[in-house]
Amino acid sequence: MKAPIDFYFDFSSPYGYLASRKIEPLAAKHSRTVKWRPMLLGAAFKATGAAPLPSIPLKGDYAKRDFLRSARFHDVQFRLPDPFPISTVAACRAFYSLETEVDRIKLAKALFSAYFVDNLNIGEAENVLKVASGIGLRPDVNDQAVKDKTRAEVEAALAKGVFGSPYIVIDGEPFWGVDRFDQIERWLREPF
Amino acid sequence: MKAPIDFYFDFSSPYGYLASRKIEPLAAKHSRTVKWRPMLLGAAFKATGAAPLPSIPLKGDYAKRDFLRSARFHDVQFRLPDPFPISTVAACRAFYSLETEVDRIKLAKALFSAYFVDNLNIGEAENVLKVASGIGLRPDVNDQAVKDKTRAEVEAALAKGVFGSPYIVIDGEPFWGVDRFDQIERWLREPF
Repeated sequence: MKAPIDFYFDFSSPYGYLASRKIEPLAAKHSRTVKWRPMLLGAAFKATGAAPLPSIPLKGDYAKRDFLRSARFHDVQFRLPDPFPISTVAACRAFYSLETEVDRIKLAKALFSAYFVDNLNIGEAENVLKVASGIGLRPDVNDQAVKDKTRAEVEAALAKGVFGSPYIVIDGEPFWGVDRFDQIERWLREPF
Repeated sequence: MKAPIDFYFDFSSPYGYLASRKIEPLAAKHSRTVKWRPMLLGAAFKATGAAPLPSIPLKGDYAKRDFLRSARFHDVQFRLPDPFPISTVAACRAFYSLETEVDRIKLAKALFSAYFVDNLNIGEAENVLKVASGIGLRPDVNDQAVKDKTRAEVEAALAKGVFGSPYIVIDGEPFWGVDRFDQIERWLREPF
C-alpha cells in the first residue's frame, strides 16, 4: 500500500482549485489516495514575504490572464470571483471540523465550486455553512477545539515548508503549482 | 510570414536557461523564429518587489530542488552555479553590442552553457569576453552607446510587462515560465 499524496491548498487559490479538479484522477491512476490539507496562504506569505498575486505590479495583471487561460488549458470551468482573494479561515475551520475524509473532501469540492464557479463569497462564514448544508453537512466554525485544530494544521504545513498553493508532496518530494502536474505524473510512474 | 516569438530572459535564470534549450525547436516546428531579448531581472524585481529565489525563506530551498528536478525532467544538462544568482549586466551588454541576430544567439547560448554547465561566473565582464572570444566573437561591454542600448532594451521589456524569466510573448499573448511550454505549444497550434 503506497502512502497517500499530500495535497496542500488554500480555498482562495485559483491554481489550487484547478489542481483540486485534477489530482484525484491522477492519483487513482497510480493507485494512490489523496490527503486534502487546506492551509492559509496568508500565514505562508508572512514567512516568505510574498503578497497576493493581484496586488503585485505587472505580475498581478499577468496572473489574472493566466488563471483564465490555465483553466481553459486544463478544461476546468472557472471564473475569477469578486471579491478575490479572500480570507479562507472559516472554510478551513469548517473542513477540519468534519470527522471523516469523505465528508471533508465533499465539502472542499463544494466550497471550491461555490467560489470559482458560482462566485459565492466563501470568505463569509455564513456562506460556508450554507454550502455545507446544501450537501447535507453541518460543520462547526466557532468551536475553540476546531480553531485550535485549524491553527495546528496550518502551522504543521508551514513546518513542512509549504509556501504556496497547490503544494503537493509525494513520498517526501515536494511539487509547487498545478504546472508541476506533468512532473508529478512522471514521478508517480517513477521518481527521476 | 508569422511574427517572431519574443523570448525575454535573464542570463542568471535557471528556468530561462532551460527555456533557451527548448524554444528554438518548438518555434521551428511551428514555422516561427525566435527574437532573443535578454533583460535584467533585478530591474523587474524593483517593479514587483520580488527577490532572488534563493534568498526567500521556504521558497528558496524548494527552488534549488526544483531547478535540478526540472532540468532532469526536460533532459537538459544543468548544475547550480556558484555564485548564484549573479548580475548579468556585462552579459547583456555583450549581447546587445553584437550586430547580427546570429552572433547574438550564438553568444547567448555560449554564455548560458558557460554558467549553467561549466560553472563559469559570467557575472565577471572578463569571463563574458573570454566566452565570446572562444567562439570568435568580440563584443564590447564598455562603449557608452552599448550601455545606453542595453538600458533601453531593459526598460522596453519592463514597459511591455516583463517581470520574470523566461517570459515569452506570442502575437501579444504573454507566457511566464518554462512551465508554460505546454500552453505555448498548444497556443502555437491554435490560440485557445
